[in-house]
Amino acid sequence: MHFTSERRLDDGVVAREFTLGEIPGTLWTPEYAAPVPLVLMAHNNGMARTEPRLVARARHTAAAGYAVASIDAAGCGDRPRSAADERVRADLRRAMRAGEPVDEIFESLVGPLVENAAPEWRTALDALLALPGIGGPVGYSGWMALGIRLAVDEPRVAAAGFFAGGFVPRAQREEARRVSVPLLVLLQWDDEGNPRQRALDLFDAFGSKEKTMHANMGGHTGTPWFEVRDGDRFFGRHLK
Amino acid sequence: MHFTSERRLDDGVVAREFTLGEIPGTLWTPEYAAPVPLVLMAHNNGMARTEPRLVARARHTAAAGYAVASIDAAGCGDRPRSAADERVRADLRRAMRAGEPVDEIFESLVGPLVENAAPEWRTALDALLALPGIGGPVGYSGWMALGIRLAVDEPRVAAAGFFAGGFVPRAQREEARRVSVPLLVLLQWDDEGNPRQRALDLFDAFGSKEKTMHANMGGHTGTPWFEVRDGDRFFGRHLK
Repeated sequence: MHFTSERRLDDGVVAREFTLGEIPGTLWTPEYAAPVPLVLMAHNNGMARTEPRLVARARHTAAAGYAVASIDAAGCGDRPRSAADERVRADLRRAMRAGEPVDEIFESLVGPLVENAAPEWRTALDALLALPGIGGPVGYSGWMALGIRLAVDEPRVAAAGFFAGGFVPRAQREEARRVSVPLLVLLQWDDEGNPRQRALDLFDAFGSKEKTMHANMGGHTGTPWFEVRDGDRFFGRHLK
Repeated sequence: MHFTSERRLDDGVVAREFTLGEIPGTLWTPEYAAPVPLVLMAHNNGMARTEPRLVARARHTAAAGYAVASIDAAGCGDRPRSAADERVRADLRRAMRAGEPVDEIFESLVGPLVENAAPEWRTALDALLALPGIGGPVGYSGWMALGIRLAVDEPRVAAAGFFAGGFVPRAQREEARRVSVPLLVLLQWDDEGNPRQRALDLFDAFGSKEKTMHANMGGHTGTPWFEVRDGDRFFGRHLK
């Protein structure tokens, strides 16, 4: 892991850019040196770790006493995309404009994204936990499909906050019953592209004994800010 | 309003019993004298204000900086019951034992309970807001059917936390669209006697622009304790 820059932010958070082989990432930590738990934060469908809403969430969570890390995994953010991937994305845009069904296109886009991203997140986890000042246990926050895969495959993930507004591929829908860590699932009640019933069914399917769903009014990007603080408290109960 | 007893509790809360005409009530306040917002706390289906889970919730919320009041309204708690009321309750017990449908019996029990209780809660609200150290705005917490009626009829109620695990009579299901205050609805995902879909439909129906649902695993009485603290923060956003 190679740190390429470091910035002190005005909320008492230090943001460091890093690379890990081909993987670019950002690590946000509180300025003080005491060991803090780690939260992996990923954006739906491989959106960039530099996206302002993710950055705002990461900074807030770091200021609340966590190390927060995000990477652009293979095919995500600004990482190079295969020609096949570009074709699927073009198909998706065309189908959405035409108002055609998009489930199968999402399946062929998000399925491979998760398959390819998960090992890189685990590589990053290894490297992050080797840093001084970062302890376990580990939390996960954000992209539900990737989080399901990590929660099932990665015993170091001890609690997860999922955003329900994103396509979940078949493989992860089937894996949902095997998720056993405490969950906090955020649902936007009138999320345009994400059918409510599908999210409720998935919440029902998770194997976790302790799972909570917070449903709020509004569309995909309307999650109220107080949910970030609720997320900090959820991690506080399970990681501290 | 006539205070009949006062106890200082070990969590810095003072509990005072009062009567208001025929209405018995309890008021929990923090020891300090600064004006605090008022939260009305009612138990499902008119259960007694002395029920230990309600008392624990009331004390916690008072310690967080609220005046919390509960009354046994007409037909509730230890108040005298009419012969008709006793008959309906006997019918209900018989039908539940026999595994028969209970919706219509609940309708004839809870419908009149709400009709009779609401005016007494409003009477109590008048008296409570006249006390020194208790300010507006007013929150409501607990019994959903009564809370719907109060939220619709009583402009002083500024925010409400509802427990979804209780029968809601037809009149209140119809009034739900007229509720406009911020809501926090607690749902127990596997509540034995309260169909989940009915609670989801009611949450959908509320007219409030800001409404949040917290769903947790487990049966009717399994709401996790952290929801009491989440409720305090919900009131903190709207009453303070």
